[in-house]
Amino acid sequence: MEKTIEHGSFIPLYHQLKEILKEKIESGEWESGDKLPSEHELQRNYDISRNTVKKALDDLVQEGMLNRIQGKGTFVSKPKFEQSLSGFYSFSKVLKQKGLNPKDIIISIEEKTVKPSIARQLQIASDTEVFDLKRLRCANDEPIILETSYIPKTIIPELSVEQLDHYSLYDYMEQVYDVSVTKAKEIFEPVLVRDYESHYLEIQEGRPALMLDRLAYDAKGTPVEFCRSIVRGDRCRFYTELI
Amino acid sequence: MEKTIEHGSFIPLYHQLKEILKEKIESGEWESGDKLPSEHELQRNYDISRNTVKKALDDLVQEGMLNRIQGKGTFVSKPKFEQSLSGFYSFSKVLKQKGLNPKDIIISIEEKTVKPSIARQLQIASDTEVFDLKRLRCANDEPIILETSYIPKTIIPELSVEQLDHYSLYDYMEQVYDVSVTKAKEIFEPVLVRDYESHYLEIQEGRPALMLDRLAYDAKGTPVEFCRSIVRGDRCRFYTELI
Repeated sequence: MEKTIEHGSFIPLYHQLKEILKEKIESGEWESGDKLPSEHELQRNYDISRNTVKKALDDLVQEGMLNRIQGKGTFVSKPKFEQSLSGFYSFSKVLKQKGLNPKDIIISIEEKTVKPSIARQLQIASDTEVFDLKRLRCANDEPIILETSYIPKTIIPELSVEQLDHYSLYDYMEQVYDVSVTKAKEIFEPVLVRDYESHYLEIQEGRPALMLDRLAYDAKGTPVEFCRSIVRGDRCRFYTELI
Repeated sequence: MEKTIEHGSFIPLYHQLKEILKEKIESGEWESGDKLPSEHELQRNYDISRNTVKKALDDLVQEGMLNRIQGKGTFVSKPKFEQSLSGFYSFSKVLKQKGLNPKDIIISIEEKTVKPSIARQLQIASDTEVFDLKRLRCANDEPIILETSYIPKTIIPELSVEQLDHYSLYDYMEQVYDVSVTKAKEIFEPVLVRDYESHYLEIQEGRPALMLDRLAYDAKGTPVEFCRSIVRGDRCRFYTELI
């Protein structure tokens, strides 16, 4: 039975409309990429005001379920990538399993003196030289994660774009320098995308994102990499199983 | 040595100031609750414009490191609660370990017909009756998490405020109905706080938060609770260890 809006209900009309639209998306009746009826049609179908329709759609756009394309209409968003936090997280592997094409764009590799806050994480002196590796991790050419890795030069004396063409960072560390990452601690929190990041991630400043800090250790328990990732909240969600 | 601003640097002045202020907080030189020098003093101390100071402070407020109190000044924020995702997460236990006083406020307990999207999660028919339990979880009277649990009435036929005065929800389920939660799957993603939630969580609409969906199972693998939490991003961060 098609759900309708109860005009006498104490539940706000826009909220009722949201639930109806969400249900169509979550049940699979409307699929990713499908175009929604126009605001005018929704107004007529549910006998509600234009403002009510607009508020419901605005909310669903903000929640990432819908997206608007200027001059084209409102569409059901692509499903989010799901990533496990239970084991070592390999973005490339997750994408390959889904038949998507992972691609890393190296934004920069710089050698610099470590910032005090990073030095504390890596347990090194604050005048130590580190590699500052910035990468944009993409799925089918869509940017998803902006990642900055800091690796002490005492751990790996060399790092270049060419080397990362051939190896993943961890494979390079292991095969060339015999440094294998065997443990990591990740801390994450929700943040708003900042101006600088929005440019690379191709989303608006102020949208929700996850900031994920990883400290990776070698077999002896020495910190070998500190990595900060900004993950697009509209494209990713994380899961974990607790037993 | 006191860090200063390099006026000839290609790094924007506000960014340099941010790094200096962050460093003072992260190193512990400035502690939680400390009042920052006035904007005027910062201007003078670092020989920079008022707009530069304002932009740096605005950014740090947005990132949650500082907070402004109208008419009083700018202060170093309280440290965030850290919660592990590796094991079963008990908000009350985390708080007690830190010497804080956990308090749950029951907002409402309603009996209602389950929404289709929740029915799918709980693997029950969409006309099933569930308890809809809304709680605000506080630390030392500060609201941190807004939690809504859905529990089929076939699992627990009764639930009241009085019962939750005596037991935690899971203890109640176990001791009264012999339903023990032994496994859970959690999915989380960054979101922006919505109007409705901002009211309970006492933060502004549009601030970053984590939406955490938990599906809890009993020993036989039957889903017994679906719980959606909105966790304040300015007060919490999560960690996990990967081995």
